[in-house]
Amino acid sequence: MTTASLPTPDAVELVGELPDGVELVIWDGSGPPPSGADRIEFFVGRYDAPPPAADVLAGLPALRVVQLLSAGVEPWLPVVPDGVLLCNGRGVHGASTAELAIAGVLSTLRELPRFDEDRRQHRWAARGDTAGLVGRRVLVIGAGDIGRRVADVARILDADVTVVARTARDGVLPMDRLPDLLGEQDVVVLAVPLVEETRRLVDADFLRRLPDGALVANVARGAIVDTDALLAELQSRRLSAFLDVTDPEPLPPDHPLWDAPNLQLTPHVGGGTRGWPQRAYALVREQLLRFHAGEELSNRVEAGY
Amino acid sequence: MTTASLPTPDAVELVGELPDGVELVIWDGSGPPPSGADRIEFFVGRYDAPPPAADVLAGLPALRVVQLLSAGVEPWLPVVPDGVLLCNGRGVHGASTAELAIAGVLSTLRELPRFDEDRRQHRWAARGDTAGLVGRRVLVIGAGDIGRRVADVARILDADVTVVARTARDGVLPMDRLPDLLGEQDVVVLAVPLVEETRRLVDADFLRRLPDGALVANVARGAIVDTDALLAELQSRRLSAFLDVTDPEPLPPDHPLWDAPNLQLTPHVGGGTRGWPQRAYALVREQLLRFHAGEELSNRVEAGY
Repeated sequence: MTTASLPTPDAVELVGELPDGVELVIWDGSGPPPSGADRIEFFVGRYDAPPPAADVLAGLPALRVVQLLSAGVEPWLPVVPDGVLLCNGRGVHGASTAELAIAGVLSTLRELPRFDEDRRQHRWAARGDTAGLVGRRVLVIGAGDIGRRVADVARILDADVTVVARTARDGVLPMDRLPDLLGEQDVVVLAVPLVEETRRLVDADFLRRLPDGALVANVARGAIVDTDALLAELQSRRLSAFLDVTDPEPLPPDHPLWDAPNLQLTPHVGGGTRGWPQRAYALVREQLLRFHAGEELSNRVEAGY
Repeated sequence: MTTASLPTPDAVELVGELPDGVELVIWDGSGPPPSGADRIEFFVGRYDAPPPAADVLAGLPALRVVQLLSAGVEPWLPVVPDGVLLCNGRGVHGASTAELAIAGVLSTLRELPRFDEDRRQHRWAARGDTAGLVGRRVLVIGAGDIGRRVADVARILDADVTVVARTARDGVLPMDRLPDLLGEQDVVVLAVPLVEETRRLVDADFLRRLPDGALVANVARGAIVDTDALLAELQSRRLSAFLDVTDPEPLPPDHPLWDAPNLQLTPHVGGGTRGWPQRAYALVREQLLRFHAGEELSNRVEAGY
């Protein structure tokens, strides 16, 4: 018998029929533990809420796996007990998040907001002088699912692409090459997880090394960028940015970033398009079946996150 | 001795140094023929102006090649004399035009204009319910440089891609499959040249076959779409569109398309990004050197256009 908890009744429906010997409990870790909580081995976290308090998961005697639906795991790290396997939602959001990065970068370079204003004014103002990716240098920081897709798309559009990540490998340079590389980039796309090494990676010094007119796109986590340093570069109109994530987040109504020039902003919608719950619970189903069969799980956070 | 005409002094600079035996004349076909016009074998057309009158090119006794900088050639077909080779600018605009198609499609699906309005209102309105390409069906009509790049990008973003073109080949279905295919498509991208067979290809019947909520993107030529038929589908809010080209073009200030709902519009800027004159005249240079050396030219319009 395997006992798993799913956060909502909808989730039970999305996971679909399961073999005999798999028992489901509906619980998201908030409120009192339901009947059967002492049997939960496989806990699926909510996507749209903070993790439960640390003592909640520590109080589940049978717990062996925490499965998340997000790629980022940082708020969960302190609350997952030692010896419990943490798995993330890598792959569920990759294509959508890469898509939003590409959408934001291209919309900014090709000046779609300005053309939309022209449309509202009934103004046909052809100009052949917008920016674009052809022949431009694009630096992708992060070589996971999102970063790889962004790099592949940029290459198809004839950009000159460099990929940097924490683990150097074939076609991927190590992070310590960044200082040398930044001076040559037209576009920088951030697609790394938030960990100690990437927190405030994009600080005043990083930004200062970028050439005039460069575009910074962040679809990862807000805290990878020093917001005040970026704001100063936007306000002087030296750099542009596309941000799907901010620090703080959500952005308070009176934050100066809202009105910064040279900025496009979306409210952390990278991974979330229609159909994502289906994609997310298809992964949960696969993982749960593997666990029940005693097979190795994928998306293990310890294994190279 | 090879004599070539270039339309502007800038073009001469962009073409760069040429071998002995290549003579350049600056002329765009308007105004009286300059001294040496009777020796012009290789004529480069202006990108930003209509072709010269039919008798101008017919009056050049040595003419053998007309080289254009655009992918589309239709206004030139009636004025290029029989026996003169017409070459287009294929490749010069491909990546940029594919890029604009991708930008327009993704910006529409991911609702970037609505998020930009939210930004102006300082409103952090995360919703996970926008459309996106993941798992969606994309039909690319046209399998040239532009269509292939659009299809490749859509595949990287996990769309389910079908390509149709006038010449069926591996991975490319013939045009007569369109009636069967249209009912299943979420996005249709038009990337075919304007010829007899594609004029008004996208008419009321074509549009009626598309499912509710489908998006039509045109980065090819305006006359491929029946504007009135598309307008009716936009006004009923059944379909959406991204148009870089229109019919008529430019769009007159009082045209109803300007205010149609569900529409993003750019003023025929697909191929034109910063740096395109360099890309265009790099092609002219290659072609001129080939011609001078007696080699076969690329981008021949007769050969499969």
